[in-house]
Parts: sequence; C-alpha cells; structure tokens
Amino acid sequence: MTALNTIPFVSVANMKRLVRDIGLERFLEELAGYIEEDFRNWEGFDKRPRVPAHSPEGVIELMPTSNGELYGCKYVSGYPSNTKVGRQTVTAFGVLSDVASGYPILLTEMTLLTALRTAANSAFAARLLAPKGARTMALIGSGAQCDFQAVAFKALLGIDRLRLYDIDRGAMEKVARNLTPRGFDITLCSSAEEAVQGAEIITTITADIRNATILSDNMIGEGVHINAVGGDSPGKTELQRDILLRSSIFVEYPPQTWIEGEIQQLPEDHPVTQLWQVVRGEAPGRTDARQVTLFDSVGFAVEDFAALRYVRDQLAHAPHFEELDFLVDPEDPRDLFGLLGEGDGVQDNAASLRPAS
Amino acid sequence: MTALNTIPFVSVANMKRLVRDIGLERFLEELAGYIEEDFRNWEGFDKRPRVPAHSPEGVIELMPTSNGELYGCKYVSGYPSNTKVGRQTVTAFGVLSDVASGYPILLTEMTLLTALRTAANSAFAARLLAPKGARTMALIGSGAQCDFQAVAFKALLGIDRLRLYDIDRGAMEKVARNLTPRGFDITLCSSAEEAVQGAEIITTITADIRNATILSDNMIGEGVHINAVGGDSPGKTELQRDILLRSSIFVEYPPQTWIEGEIQQLPEDHPVTQLWQVVRGEAPGRTDARQVTLFDSVGFAVEDFAALRYVRDQLAHAPHFEELDFLVDPEDPRDLFGLLGEGDGVQDNAASLRPAS
Repeated sequence: MTALNTIPFVSVANMKRLVRDIGLERFLEELAGYIEEDFRNWEGFDKRPRVPAHSPEGVIELMPTSNGELYGCKYVSGYPSNTKVGRQTVTAFGVLSDVASGYPILLTEMTLLTALRTAANSAFAARLLAPKGARTMALIGSGAQCDFQAVAFKALLGIDRLRLYDIDRGAMEKVARNLTPRGFDITLCSSAEEAVQGAEIITTITADIRNATILSDNMIGEGVHINAVGGDSPGKTELQRDILLRSSIFVEYPPQTWIEGEIQQLPEDHPVTQLWQVVRGEAPGRTDARQVTLFDSVGFAVEDFAALRYVRDQLAHAPHFEELDFLVDPEDPRDLFGLLGEGDGVQDNAASLRPAS
Repeated sequence: MTALNTIPFVSVANMKRLVRDIGLERFLEELAGYIEEDFRNWEGFDKRPRVPAHSPEGVIELMPTSNGELYGCKYVSGYPSNTKVGRQTVTAFGVLSDVASGYPILLTEMTLLTALRTAANSAFAARLLAPKGARTMALIGSGAQCDFQAVAFKALLGIDRLRLYDIDRGAMEKVARNLTPRGFDITLCSSAEEAVQGAEIITTITADIRNATILSDNMIGEGVHINAVGGDSPGKTELQRDILLRSSIFVEYPPQTWIEGEIQQLPEDHPVTQLWQVVRGEAPGRTDARQVTLFDSVGFAVEDFAALRYVRDQLAHAPHFEELDFLVDPEDPRDLFGLLGEGDGVQDNAASLRPAS
C-alpha cells in the first residue's frame, strides 16, 4: 500500500543531479517538448493572470493552473536588488497536485527549474518565429537567466554565436566563462548597439524594475526576432514603443501580458497573436523574411505546469528525490485529532525525509 | 554567516511534537492571541478572496496575504468524498516569507495547523459573541474538525458539556473516545434537533458540498451563538435562510464571505459586521442576552498568517523542525548557471534535510 503521508521532494541538490543525469541540453529540449504539449492543449487549462503581492523592493507571485487532471502552482519572487546583498533576484518553488483528490504529488525547488523553463520556453517560441538558419544571438543583460537562454537556443535552434552586453563587465565575463566550454563563439560588447550588430535574434533579459529603453527602434533591423524576457511586470519594460508598432507581436496569455508585458505600452486593441495558436497552426508565425517578430514573454503558469510535469515524469527513472513527511494519514481518516494522541509512532519517526528507495 | 539555501520545515511528525510540547490547550490559546493581534492590524493587510481551482470532486485554494513585513500563503484542498477512500477532506501546507527579500523563511504542514487555527478562530470569535457563562455546546458534524473545536472552546471559554450529532454514529463515538479523557461531559444525540436542546453555542461543521439545512429556524432559541464553520464555498451552506434574517451576522472578510459563506443566501446589501471591528471595539459584538449571534466563518488568509507566525515564533524555543535544502545560494549570486557546473559540493550533500541543531 502506498503511503499517503509522504510526497516526493526535489531539493536544489537533487535538481542539480537531475539536470546532470539527463544532460542540460537534452533536459531543455525535452522540457520544450512538454511545453509544446501543454500549449497544444491551451484551451483545456484553467487560466488566470498570476496573483501578485507587490512591495517597494519586488514582488511575490503565485502562478496556479490546472488541466483538469493535474494542478500546478509556482511561488516565485522577483527582487532585482537582492543581488546587492548576495541573494537571488528570482526564488521559486512549486507543487503539482492530483485534481481528483486535491493531494500534492510533488514538491520541488523551482529557482533552477524556472531558469530552465524560461530558457526552454524562449527557445521553443523562437523555433516558431525566428528567421530560418539563424546562428547569432545578441543577449542584453548577463544576469542569472542569460546563460540558460544561450544553452536553450543552442539546443533547440543551433545558435552558437553570442554577442553579450551588460552594464556590469564582470557579469559578461561570468557568462563567457560558463559558456565558452560549451562550444559558443562569444563576443563581449561595450554597448547594446554593438551587441545587436549582425544578430538574427535579440534577447533582452535585464532586471531593473522600470520603463527602460534597452532597445531603441533604430537598433532593430529587418527580419530580426526579438525575445523580450526581462519586461515582465507593471512599469517594467525594455523596448522602445516604436519597436512594438512595427513588430508582429506574439504573447502567452493576453490578460496577463497586457498587465506585465511590453504591450502595456500599447492600447488594448492593438493586435497580438497568442503563441498557442501558432503552435496549433491556427495562426501564422513568421510569414516574411523581413518581418520583425517579437515574443513578448512574461512567463505563464502553463509553462511551469509543463516543467512540473516533466520533473515528475523524470523521477520514475532518475530517482533524485526524497520522500517528505508532508501530509497526514491517520488510521481513521475522520480522526485527525487522534494523531495528536499517544502511541502514534511519533517517537519512531525521527527523520521526516527519506531518500527515494 | 547564515545559510541562504535552507529554510526551516515543519513536517507532520514535528507539528505533532510541537503541539505536545506546548500542550494542546495552551497552543490553541496562544494561537488565538496571534489571531487577535492580526485582526487588530486588519487594515494593515493586503487582502483578497482566496484563489480557487474548482473541480467536480472538490476545490484547491490558495490563500495569500501580507502585512508588509511578512507574506503568508496557504495551499488547502477540500474534498469531502476523500474520506471514502481513506484520505483527508482537508489537506494543507503553508509558507511564510520575508517581504523585504521575497525569500521563504518557513515551510510547514498545515493539515493539522489548519484544524488548530480554525478551532482557535471559532473560539476566539465566540469569546466576543457568545452569551456569558456558556457551558454547553452542540456540535453538528463529527468529522476531523469536531474534536479541535471542542478543545478550543474548552480552552478559551470553559465549555465542558458537548451535545454531538452526526449521521454517522461511528464518527460521534470517535469524538467521545478522544474527548472524554479531556474532561468533557458528552451526550450523543440522535438528531440535530436533540443536540441543540439546552446548548448556548451551536457549532455546525458538516462537510457535504450542497445547500443543506443542518439547522432550521425553529431549532434556534433566543440568545444562542451559532458558530457556522461548515458552509464555506459556493453552493455549500448549512443554515436555513430564516435563521440569517433574525441573527446578528459577523464575518471575516466580506468579499470572500459573500462568495462562500452562509450569507451567499442573502442580498448583498444585508448588514453584516466585520469581526475585526468588534476586536478593535469599533463595532458592537453581543449587545443583548436574547440576541442570536452568528459567526459566518469561512476561514480567511489572515488567520493562517497568524498561525504561520505563531509556529515560526515557537521554533525558537521548541526546535521541532528540519532545515530543508530549498533555495539556491551560489557563490556569485549572478551565477545561477554555475551551480550546474562541476565541483559545487553536490556529491557531498547526500541528504537535503538536517535536524535543527
């Protein structure tokens, strides 16, 4: 009989093991496959904009969704000034549950997993939208997400030339150190203008919470695909409005993107295409080599749901998890109170967590 | 230097130890004190109705709130038919976070803790609303929450005579078995009508998701306090509408109670009093010995926040927790990617969870 009181928990150490075991590029490719599957089933999801708690320093968000069989929820915080005190900008964990019983079936760290899913999602969208045969990507912003983006674009699109720009040269050097051994040809640039030269794909991933102009209109040539990742909350954008006006704009979930994305700069009747429609062939992606395509990505719950599903499925053959004493399982399910009584085995249960058997 | 990658985790086994260590009645009294403190600061909270995911069998809900310094969120599921397959109706866990950094600072089981806080909250409200000197409580519904209610009312109000009714006699016998050793005089009744005879307080805690008539108007005498706990989601009520029309109604957070509480049966202009106003002396509670008072309780996030705060504070002197490897802490905070590289100590970190030192 399966224990009803424990659930698998993937710690940060085990997530690292899982990624190494599977291999980073394969992990990203397979994760993109799960994302694609859930985008195809887009209409089967219970969707809502994420639930934010804003504070002067940042935001804590809840991102729940369900496909009727499974329920997923991510807790994620975004605090750009955290790096000044040695902390992460983004911190996250997630839970996957069985909709038939309401019971959690997986608890996992999602700080690493969010970085992986954001990168897999960007590359997945670019595979639908970027010009064919692209090999060069400009990356504006060299923070925690930058390296993951690069590897995902290599795994899914074969991008192997990177042009980096960050106001912090040390951050660029960190990326170069991490990625050179992975077969990239890397150029460190001294401005965003320089970085975008010759790039078929431009990825913006800066962290400041403000309406910034990371890319201005004159920097965007014909045929480019823009992967705008950093503009993802009210008052936090990266692109000059003029760029939006001459781009074909693709979004995840419009009610959330209108609040959080680059398109918060536009009137709400401006046409946008939902990515799931392109995935299902119900709307065109890129139709013209000279077209500027823009993926105005803010990150949506369905992508985290896909990541939770992917991790859950991997645990069957790569058991990098522990069993966490998370739920109650009294002998008589009506007798929760009896659990507090004597002789229920508390003394014998010194550790709450067991390695997977 | 404090480790940034671990947070305290309270498993079910440790929650049991914590309750035993403190003592159940003292735990409930102290918890009610924390609830009172947060009700007093009601206007300082960021409040919203909980975020539900409904399915045919039940509901999974998220209950976030923040007082600007701390952020709390509970995941809770309500699946009444779960007991048929040996599972819990209610399953819950929670997280408390530091608003200044967005970092979680406590993860805990909340299945037991929800039962404790619901009971503490009911008794806390009854101390403000029930007739003075009450000693007898009728409890309609003998499920998981029943015993907790009784002990909380004993701890906070001195209630020591219980009149139970449940359609399942075995459930009543379970309660009697658990509570007789705790100094209660217990009568098992064969109907709700019989149970309410002579009771100054009537608590309804049935689980069926439907508009039921657990109490009808003719059963409610003058001066009674009704603690209506079971009616807590759309289409799930326990009281005949006529009772509401002659009661003084007290609620937690009106926008949520209008959706989920007994008052979903009333037009939205019907007068209700917010409990926090009574706590602060800004609105009257019971003003007349013949008045029927009704606490239309659905459970609100601020109560869970208080419970999370209480548990967090107890851990300082009752270290019933483990350190969970939940967050990342790379040497260079910008270099999340570097964590995936070699030589980062993964091999040395076989277990994710350490007992509190």
